[in-house]
Amino acid sequence: MSERAVFFLSDQTGVTAETLGHSLLTQFDGQKFRQVTLPFIDTLDKAREAVRKINLAAKDSALRPIIFSTMVQDDFRAVIREAEGLHLDIFDVFLEPLEKELQQKSTHMAGRAHGMSDIEGYMRRIEATNFALANDDGGISRNYDKADVILVGVSRSGKTPTCLYLALQYGVYAANFPLTDEEFDRGELPDILLKMKQKLFGLTIAPTRLRQIRKERRPLGRYSSTQQVGYEVREAEKIFKRHNIPYVDTTEFSIEEISSRILDGTGVERRVRP
Amino acid sequence: MSERAVFFLSDQTGVTAETLGHSLLTQFDGQKFRQVTLPFIDTLDKAREAVRKINLAAKDSALRPIIFSTMVQDDFRAVIREAEGLHLDIFDVFLEPLEKELQQKSTHMAGRAHGMSDIEGYMRRIEATNFALANDDGGISRNYDKADVILVGVSRSGKTPTCLYLALQYGVYAANFPLTDEEFDRGELPDILLKMKQKLFGLTIAPTRLRQIRKERRPLGRYSSTQQVGYEVREAEKIFKRHNIPYVDTTEFSIEEISSRILDGTGVERRVRP
Repeated sequence: MSERAVFFLSDQTGVTAETLGHSLLTQFDGQKFRQVTLPFIDTLDKAREAVRKINLAAKDSALRPIIFSTMVQDDFRAVIREAEGLHLDIFDVFLEPLEKELQQKSTHMAGRAHGMSDIEGYMRRIEATNFALANDDGGISRNYDKADVILVGVSRSGKTPTCLYLALQYGVYAANFPLTDEEFDRGELPDILLKMKQKLFGLTIAPTRLRQIRKERRPLGRYSSTQQVGYEVREAEKIFKRHNIPYVDTTEFSIEEISSRILDGTGVERRVRP
Repeated sequence: MSERAVFFLSDQTGVTAETLGHSLLTQFDGQKFRQVTLPFIDTLDKAREAVRKINLAAKDSALRPIIFSTMVQDDFRAVIREAEGLHLDIFDVFLEPLEKELQQKSTHMAGRAHGMSDIEGYMRRIEATNFALANDDGGISRNYDKADVILVGVSRSGKTPTCLYLALQYGVYAANFPLTDEEFDRGELPDILLKMKQKLFGLTIAPTRLRQIRKERRPLGRYSSTQQVGYEVREAEKIFKRHNIPYVDTTEFSIEEISSRILDGTGVERRVRP
């Protein structure tokens, strides 16, 4: 089956067009897509250049390109519309009903989303990221008073990427603490965590999956042995249950899903919105 | 002015609805929105509960709620549609033209985007994140052979969050190296970077803005002095120019924008798509 070209066009980063397009395309199994992002189309020349690229792809294949776009300015949209393909323009479709509902004309200005319209939001995300890094893996600062949530779980259960995602995407202050033999031997969490019990959220994972992940890091030895992995997961879950710590099984979840479930489960407010 | 409630509804994480909704709402200045995400609506009961919440918000305010949704299953969508408000459903609008174009019915299955349909993609993002952490701030591994891109710039120019964003969002291997007095005294990059010149990408920033950021970290001393900050930025840009290193001014840019400009400027391929 030949590939179909998919273009994500934007006068800005293209993140919205990519997210929307990806979400829709995953609904079609078995299709092959060649995805191209063309961001920062903020001059008529760049718009024409994008049209040229799309038309070239159209010529190269029997399959019409699909074009997801988030172009705000009418004159650029008019140029883009000349490209050969199926046009799905987010602003085309949704801006009018919103204008009607809000009884206000949209600004039709590029670069509002994902942009620096909001310096404060930018600083929050940076600060939250620094917080996640400083409080990673039970690390340096242990500044748990400031944390919105503290993730606990065994090594490689997904704590670090989840904390970073929560910080970058939502400005949420997420710390994490690894459960290791030290905790399991004592059968208890350290005092510093027990004092913050209401902030704890557990991550668990299927032992077979965890073993697979750990083996990529360290193929040999106790760390990735069936026995050790099974033991750690069992003990971690025991601790979660004993303390009524809410937890999520990350085995089948993406980073976005784990993050959403944590926010949903804890009620922690997003400080920034993507 | 009173607040208008905005709901992001999804049978999955809600990331697509949030991204799209945010992108559209930023086009309307001066409006106040109270934003609520209701993810994982995967039973009829949860759909009814969402309707209850929306109707409550509608009753509380003279302003109709706005509902952005990405519900795939028809029966859930039918329930949601009963809620009081302006409905903007992404699948409603775009799925039909896509089905026609692709000559295929969509799977109408929830949880395809941002989900674990793609374990390989998940692993790539995790590995890229680990790479960014190990190669942060000229750190531990300096495994630059494996890097897709190496960001260089002065302290607090935005290197770390950008590398993490590139990793989490796109699975791109991004290392970063801080330019400090050591480089400026010598007026040259270290050999390890010169050998990788084609992978380098510079970040610069307006001295006044940099000073403001640094002062939040360390209010006193040379690190955030006008003189030092100006000197570092000037010297860094000199190095970029001398070696023809492409660079971007991050002063007015969000993390998404910096990242998109790097990918656009280097031609580095996204290994994963959001």
